Amino acid sequence: MLSNFYNKFSELGLIDYFGKTLNIKKPEILKGIGDDAAVVKISKNKYLLNTCDMLIEGKHFRKTDDLCRVGYKAIACSLSDIAAMGGKPRFSLISLGIPESFGFTDIKSLSRGIKKACDKFSVSVIGGDTNSSHKLIIDVSIIGFVHPRNLVLRNNAKPGDYIFVTGSLGGSIYRRHLEFLPRVKESQFLTNKFKLHSMIDISDGLVIDLWRILKASGVGAVIFENLIPIHKDAKGLKQALYMGEDFELLFTVSEKEGRRLLDIIRQGKIKFPLSFIGKVIHKKSQIQLIDKNRKPKMLKPKGFLHF
Amino acid sequence: MLSNFYNKFSELGLIDYFGKTLNIKKPEILKGIGDDAAVVKISKNKYLLNTCDMLIEGKHFRKTDDLCRVGYKAIACSLSDIAAMGGKPRFSLISLGIPESFGFTDIKSLSRGIKKACDKFSVSVIGGDTNSSHKLIIDVSIIGFVHPRNLVLRNNAKPGDYIFVTGSLGGSIYRRHLEFLPRVKESQFLTNKFKLHSMIDISDGLVIDLWRILKASGVGAVIFENLIPIHKDAKGLKQALYMGEDFELLFTVSEKEGRRLLDIIRQGKIKFPLSFIGKVIHKKSQIQLIDKNRKPKMLKPKGFLHF
Repeated sequence: MLSNFYNKFSELGLIDYFGKTLNIKKPEILKGIGDDAAVVKISKNKYLLNTCDMLIEGKHFRKTDDLCRVGYKAIACSLSDIAAMGGKPRFSLISLGIPESFGFTDIKSLSRGIKKACDKFSVSVIGGDTNSSHKLIIDVSIIGFVHPRNLVLRNNAKPGDYIFVTGSLGGSIYRRHLEFLPRVKESQFLTNKFKLHSMIDISDGLVIDLWRILKASGVGAVIFENLIPIHKDAKGLKQALYMGEDFELLFTVSEKEGRRLLDIIRQGKIKFPLSFIGKVIHKKSQIQLIDKNRKPKMLKPKGFLHF
Repeated sequence: MLSNFYNKFSELGLIDYFGKTLNIKKPEILKGIGDDAAVVKISKNKYLLNTCDMLIEGKHFRKTDDLCRVGYKAIACSLSDIAAMGGKPRFSLISLGIPESFGFTDIKSLSRGIKKACDKFSVSVIGGDTNSSHKLIIDVSIIGFVHPRNLVLRNNAKPGDYIFVTGSLGGSIYRRHLEFLPRVKESQFLTNKFKLHSMIDISDGLVIDLWRILKASGVGAVIFENLIPIHKDAKGLKQALYMGEDFELLFTVSEKEGRRLLDIIRQGKIKFPLSFIGKVIHKKSQIQLIDKNRKPKMLKPKGFLHF
């Protein structure tokens, strides 16, 4: 997926450029470009979250993929972004580019998948746009809400923080990337019970998404090979570190909260898979992996980028 | 632009289908799929508006078009939707599919056009998504706000209403569709000073967009050929009726408000072009054109549809 385009100006560089150029400051914008979702203050006790994700045939799914699963994924990706902010999704707009070859059966399949994801998380599709297109394009924007005390950004990881990740990583692209369950309920559980310092959803790979937290927070991290939860579909550690499309939550909490969380995990009181994988350190944006022989290795921030 | 796809299931049919299938009812959703923007109640005095528009290279603009103008149009289309509800635009998300052939100069041009439109109407880009793509795709979603007393929907035109349109119509595609000024300020003026019954922006053509108001309201209309404001770029009446991409506001007001508006127009107190073009009648969804010889003619709801 890494192409010439990526080499020319990576997604990261582009986002920085747009962030600098297009973000007119307004007092109610608490977070603009540069997190999983934008945050806008609506009232003292309510912040609005807004995010979008575009899926393009041939880039994010294959022409031969089941359209029901494609529709499901299109919604689920944006739900995962809302979860990564600690929020609850509520409304959606869907823009479609529809191939002229599509029949009504195709529309129904796509729609069934969209509905499946929306129903599961009580999201209402309130609008959209339809166009004909060479390839199938689905762009989903979602509005969610979050109570200020539940809001978690990327840029507040602190040295000493414990790093956790939900689920297991790698090999998603072989199957489950079209049917993953966005961690909306898990995010609600975590943000209601614990004070999270920083959070992101793993869309492009553990290492690059961890790097995004570290870069935004001005810190580094050390992670342990033997603690990384590798999915059974993954062909080894490398895929768990770099493959992406996992849509798991990666977050940091203070040491104190981290110990409390580990206790609760040990007591079997958490009903979803959750792993401690490392700690936040001072070194800015650096990621150290401690391998099974206790040898440290520097990891470069690369991953699955949509270019 | 009318293709096999359109014949198979027109944009209108698709939107109806999605509206029926995907719109989970929630008490705060005052309008879901089926108007220029969705309307969500935020508080007693504030409604949120949310709309999106997708532009695809080769469908809505040419590969050779100036990218600055394309970026401008992408924002302006959605601003026009917010204006058609009586609202003020405020925030935007932009999803991009960027051709691999693009260079940084192209990104800068596109971004300059986006910024031009956003700055003009004080809209802040708060997020987005970037992907590589075969052709350039720009999907813009906009959040705006409207005071409940200024909100205008499509479905409240009443028999006896006067029909007005801003600007002049037809031939937009030859030049100005990439540089039109969305009628945000005009909408503010009109909704602050007058009680509007129904409104839409003309994106697909006067006749089809008028038909959308009539269908939603369960009424008909009679319009007068000699009152239709034909743009100097248009090649005759037909283009003014059917061509689309005008992005003018089409609205109805009660006879009393209509007379008041006509008085104010005559007194030269309105600083933008505004024309009375006809009246709402009982006959459901029918559009009668009275030609220059005072002969009535039934018009079919066709126009420029993006298929």
